[in-house]
Amino acid sequence: MGSSSSSASSSVFHPRSLLPSASQVNISSSGSARWTKSYDVCICHNQGDFEFVEEMVSYLESQPETFRCFLQLRDATPGSAIVTELCEAVQNSHCWVMVITPGFLQDPWCRYQMHQALAEAPMTNGRTIPVLKDIDRKDYPRELRCIYYIRVTFKENGFRQIKDSVLRYLQELCQSTPSTTE
Amino acid sequence: MGSSSSSASSSVFHPRSLLPSASQVNISSSGSARWTKSYDVCICHNQGDFEFVEEMVSYLESQPETFRCFLQLRDATPGSAIVTELCEAVQNSHCWVMVITPGFLQDPWCRYQMHQALAEAPMTNGRTIPVLKDIDRKDYPRELRCIYYIRVTFKENGFRQIKDSVLRYLQELCQSTPSTTE
Repeated sequence: MGSSSSSASSSVFHPRSLLPSASQVNISSSGSARWTKSYDVCICHNQGDFEFVEEMVSYLESQPETFRCFLQLRDATPGSAIVTELCEAVQNSHCWVMVITPGFLQDPWCRYQMHQALAEAPMTNGRTIPVLKDIDRKDYPRELRCIYYIRVTFKENGFRQIKDSVLRYLQELCQSTPSTTE
Repeated sequence: MGSSSSSASSSVFHPRSLLPSASQVNISSSGSARWTKSYDVCICHNQGDFEFVEEMVSYLESQPETFRCFLQLRDATPGSAIVTELCEAVQNSHCWVMVITPGFLQDPWCRYQMHQALAEAPMTNGRTIPVLKDIDRKDYPRELRCIYYIRVTFKENGFRQIKDSVLRYLQELCQSTPSTTE
């Protein structure tokens, strides 16, 4: 990460207190609750933001944890009904990163997927991870108002915050769900 | 009201001091700030408590002030996205009565609506009205810890306290907001 990941990036981020040992949990051990879903993260985004999203996914997939990302253009099954694919992506993923840009706000598919995610788990702390990019606070969707978001000013810093959020969710999930092999 | 509305009902209720004339305010006069929102009260509840809630709403709507209640099962627009409806119910109502029961605590929609209400007005005295029923003080949501609640032991007494709370909020609102027709 370069020098651009400075503190100037306004990080509106919720410092959730972890249970003492959550950060010690190995999310990749066999039998981990992580493997109960096909993906760690579903990326919900407008196609106009594909370049940014590809870079984010590349970052997440190259981490030591090799986060498994669902990227619609790459991972959806050709021939499937689009909304079914969107729903399954939501259901088969632990976390949902919503890349909220001007394009997202105009895109009915994005709004649909956001609503499906909220309906799937209206109040599961940490599953929905809103990522704001190039939009004002006032344009933040009111449905997400009660959820802290990450504002991306500098990519590197933003990507790191996203990774930390996913990791934290998975650690808490694995901690609270007994391993199937122990 | 029968003899059951006795003083045995433990009323943990905040005796807020009113400005001298607040109780004299006519909340129903034309141009009153009351009419700036579609509803006086949004009832946030679990569907398992519908019978109790229906009775409460019936009580509130039959008062001389004819309090306008938003009751999701009755008043939501079919076909609307659920979280949008929940958000709009919060935004379009002056007060929010949270019927906190064992069902409420288990219900992610209820928790979502509670969080949206708190995000809308974290510290507006009197807008959020927690109503405890069949739960222990220890199960009271920590997010509401700084807000006095009404414990319903005897329905009639509880309903009266809820009505008084809504009325007080509306009177203070109308007193502090100049009438548009005067």
